[in-house]
Amino acid sequence: MPITTCVFDAYGTLFDVNAAAAQAADDPDFPRLADLWPAVARDWRRKQLEYTWLRAVADRHCDFWQVTQDGLDWALAAQGLDDPALRARLLALYRQLPTYAEVPAMLAALKARGLTTAILSNGSPDMLNAAVASAGIAPQLDAILSVETVGVFKPHARVYDLVGAQFGCAKDEVLFVSSNGWDAAGAAGYGFRTIWVNRAGDPPDRLYADPHHTLGNLVSIPDLL
Amino acid sequence: MPITTCVFDAYGTLFDVNAAAAQAADDPDFPRLADLWPAVARDWRRKQLEYTWLRAVADRHCDFWQVTQDGLDWALAAQGLDDPALRARLLALYRQLPTYAEVPAMLAALKARGLTTAILSNGSPDMLNAAVASAGIAPQLDAILSVETVGVFKPHARVYDLVGAQFGCAKDEVLFVSSNGWDAAGAAGYGFRTIWVNRAGDPPDRLYADPHHTLGNLVSIPDLL
Repeated sequence: MPITTCVFDAYGTLFDVNAAAAQAADDPDFPRLADLWPAVARDWRRKQLEYTWLRAVADRHCDFWQVTQDGLDWALAAQGLDDPALRARLLALYRQLPTYAEVPAMLAALKARGLTTAILSNGSPDMLNAAVASAGIAPQLDAILSVETVGVFKPHARVYDLVGAQFGCAKDEVLFVSSNGWDAAGAAGYGFRTIWVNRAGDPPDRLYADPHHTLGNLVSIPDLL
Repeated sequence: MPITTCVFDAYGTLFDVNAAAAQAADDPDFPRLADLWPAVARDWRRKQLEYTWLRAVADRHCDFWQVTQDGLDWALAAQGLDDPALRARLLALYRQLPTYAEVPAMLAALKARGLTTAILSNGSPDMLNAAVASAGIAPQLDAILSVETVGVFKPHARVYDLVGAQFGCAKDEVLFVSSNGWDAAGAAGYGFRTIWVNRAGDPPDRLYADPHHTLGNLVSIPDLL
């Protein structure tokens, strides 16, 4: 079955989640962040994801804005950075994360080929709408699908079900793209065609399914179709 | 309600999960591990836990021996350590992890006070039986409860249900002890009295429930009862 629908994870895939801490580190108001921002960015992301999985396992859902704050609070505490102004600044930056450089042209190329495009994300609708508007990529997206519709985080199958519910397409018409190895594995196990974008050169995750393709960035995706 | 039943997480709480990599690093057969063992131990543990949560969310259970191997394979690949003999040695050491020094006396003190004691672990029965036998603590334990009975990993409520099913006790008669902040949060949210053993001095996890007590090790637990 040819691919009709390209679905992208948002955070880490289209949007650079490390940019918030990197940008705040350039602000002279937060001098301690100059050295500590890589650790803050790493722990923030790690705890944010851990909390999504733990809440899904324990059936204790809350929205992604809450776990984003919870993960940041852990990360700041780990570095001894108890600064409400810094916390507020990092959260504000997280709502307007930049895309990776190749994203606008890549999405435009998919639309020019007549493909359906969408985001499927753990993010809450207001976070996603803010990020998409800030990046100016709304015209290239046919839908922004949030886990809030089903009340559980990835990689639960109910999340991946949102694609077929939205577009009426078969699983094997969908190309799902994520920079998160576990999300690519989840989507591959669900039945989507899957690309893992491995920007960091990490080893592949050892899970229950493997992505169909691995790329270093998003540039060549239109050429695969 | 007074505490009648003390239930311990196994890996990281009673058994030192870093010991396998540390012990292998002393072996002249594996010289590269001398510098790399802390990173191997850290990534092994991180991926092992991530894979338990991801499999629970996606309803793709396998036993803990499989995710222990999968996590190790990721950790070795991340350091460029492609050595089947090292892999086999680390896995063999993981089946006979030492306890933390205070464990045997602490368990004996609980038994001397007439308390019921148990392990409640993600570990598979054969892994747990091997570790308990190797450490010589079987006489101080009334039960070894494994998630394999319910086919899903912590912090799913069905795992914590195993304690009441085994002993017929009420939730608030149970003191649950874990060095994993997320496990302590899970048990506290479930309704157990809970101690988080924070050996590393980490910030508390920001989840849906907080542990009732935080200790630096297991020494003083009998005095709390």
